Amino acid sequence: MTPIGLDDIEALAVGAWILGTGGGGSPHHALLCLRRIFTKSATIELIDPSVLDDDDLVAVVSYMGAPLVIQERLVDSAQVARAVTLMQEHLGRHFRAVMALEIGGGNGMLPMLAAAQLGIPVVDADAMGRAYPEAQMTSFAVGDLRPAPLTTVDPRGIEVIVSNVPTWKWMERASRKVCVEYGSIAATCKAPRTGAEVKRWGIPGTTSKAIRLGRAVVEANRHHRDPIEAILTSEHGKWLFAGKIVEVERRTTAGFLRGKAVVEVAADEHIVLDFQNEWTVIWRDGKPIASTPDLICVLNSDSGEAIGTEVIRYGQRVTAIALPSPDVFLTQQGLENVGPRAFGYDFDFRSVFVS
Amino acid sequence: MTPIGLDDIEALAVGAWILGTGGGGSPHHALLCLRRIFTKSATIELIDPSVLDDDDLVAVVSYMGAPLVIQERLVDSAQVARAVTLMQEHLGRHFRAVMALEIGGGNGMLPMLAAAQLGIPVVDADAMGRAYPEAQMTSFAVGDLRPAPLTTVDPRGIEVIVSNVPTWKWMERASRKVCVEYGSIAATCKAPRTGAEVKRWGIPGTTSKAIRLGRAVVEANRHHRDPIEAILTSEHGKWLFAGKIVEVERRTTAGFLRGKAVVEVAADEHIVLDFQNEWTVIWRDGKPIASTPDLICVLNSDSGEAIGTEVIRYGQRVTAIALPSPDVFLTQQGLENVGPRAFGYDFDFRSVFVS
Repeated sequence: MTPIGLDDIEALAVGAWILGTGGGGSPHHALLCLRRIFTKSATIELIDPSVLDDDDLVAVVSYMGAPLVIQERLVDSAQVARAVTLMQEHLGRHFRAVMALEIGGGNGMLPMLAAAQLGIPVVDADAMGRAYPEAQMTSFAVGDLRPAPLTTVDPRGIEVIVSNVPTWKWMERASRKVCVEYGSIAATCKAPRTGAEVKRWGIPGTTSKAIRLGRAVVEANRHHRDPIEAILTSEHGKWLFAGKIVEVERRTTAGFLRGKAVVEVAADEHIVLDFQNEWTVIWRDGKPIASTPDLICVLNSDSGEAIGTEVIRYGQRVTAIALPSPDVFLTQQGLENVGPRAFGYDFDFRSVFVS
Repeated sequence: MTPIGLDDIEALAVGAWILGTGGGGSPHHALLCLRRIFTKSATIELIDPSVLDDDDLVAVVSYMGAPLVIQERLVDSAQVARAVTLMQEHLGRHFRAVMALEIGGGNGMLPMLAAAQLGIPVVDADAMGRAYPEAQMTSFAVGDLRPAPLTTVDPRGIEVIVSNVPTWKWMERASRKVCVEYGSIAATCKAPRTGAEVKRWGIPGTTSKAIRLGRAVVEANRHHRDPIEAILTSEHGKWLFAGKIVEVERRTTAGFLRGKAVVEVAADEHIVLDFQNEWTVIWRDGKPIASTPDLICVLNSDSGEAIGTEVIRYGQRVTAIALPSPDVFLTQQGLENVGPRAFGYDFDFRSVFVS
């Protein structure tokens, strides 16, 4: 059991944003919320999945919706905690701990908020190793675990429980419509997982990985070293290209943020980045050169900090890198859930890490 | 406690369809379902609201959605019963009885299906005295009772519980979106009502009224008397006009069936009937001559049977009549919930029963 301090949180905000691959929501508001919590006597403990008993129950939390909306409707620890307690009421059981659905972006910090509010530890694991836009794009879905129940909470006091669904896709469809009606953002507690399920299907160590990654960036900047080099070294990443943003198309539709960004990498040489909440595919001359499930991270070329799909804008100097995907998404079932075809693209995945 | 026989059910199908004022879904499939149930040893009991204890719990059932879709996705007693048992699981309490949300249309027969399946009696009451399209258009909403929780069930096994909402309008919005995602039809168990609430805010005697009304039509037809005259006499109704349908516009949108029907009542004399699931307003020369909450019933001129908004078609000979609204909707709050302005019309209600 590792106590989490404010410096860990500051590093987590930087690292989770990078692992967000453009999505998961900016960690900024969650960070502000946690800074405030730490001015009081907050105790947050990080535990390894291995310490869970098989029949322990773990809450899996996330904000669901369009990252752009989180910019306006702030992160609220009470709302996140309410999604968890609503689930406890529905189940008639208490949670042993809380974990992230996705370590990427602000969603990677949500368990800290819930933990501080509820007095339970955070499990050092998630179900994506990054951020993804849809409910079936998790290691739990790849493992064919139960998709339901799921609780959703909105700041007006609307509370909806999706208590049963036949498939993960139906969980996505039903919960997405509720989320859209809330205003395209909902605090959610996903299907509760047993300790055994987390140990078998959770992606372990991703919270400490995000903290390590964030710390590498912070330290590099402090010592005037190249932060992007520090990221690539720390996480075995691959440099893809650098350039200037010359065009952004962005629309909030059906509960997602979709669009593309065009990067000028040399005179008359452009690269296109598609996104659906997260960066999905990189195109050069009409050909995909990188795609999900490889993590596509677009970083501020100077600071090494991530740039989200909801805030990227004309004129920014960016560097794109790739980080390796968790193994669980490289299986046939994994690629079915999160590969390029799962996002409507008509090509097969080819990792930038395989030459 | 009155035992309900198959002849009561046959009469109920006719009467509920008339009280449906064009909506509530055709009772045809519910009738087929009940005929089948009665071939086995079904026992259905009708009880007066007055026999309920104050703290008894009553399930309020209905299909929610676009009547047109019920024509394709058949009524299923197991699905209706599941909405009720899901609510029991959510509450951790059992229901004493079941009642209709709306006596109009197939929804007026649903409690019979649930009762046969679950072995509990039907309360002789509803919350509309007719059919209405939206969640806040009930006597319970006029009485400002709690709108939540509500359970929804779909034949694929999707089950969603709207467990909290700040207002009836939000219940309408949240549950409607779920219903649309199901395919614009959902079996629902509305907010449970206590015996005290049913006695104070339920509209009593509407099931037996529908049976009486249906029997009047059946008897008139059997004895070659005018069935429309029989309806007007039985329920103090008012004859409005008769003519031929010459035009129908109909679209399924946002979970509702909306449109209009044009009736030729004389050479070059046309009357327009608007509907949103149910008939809402009658127009003559651009002026409203009848509107909700008065019950507008469009009947087959020969048989006296009701014609639903989802099946009305060119060439039908129809007679339009009005039946008096339940008193609860004639109050200021009642008119706010179900008067013409609640349907987006810019005029005040004027009853055809006030000269």
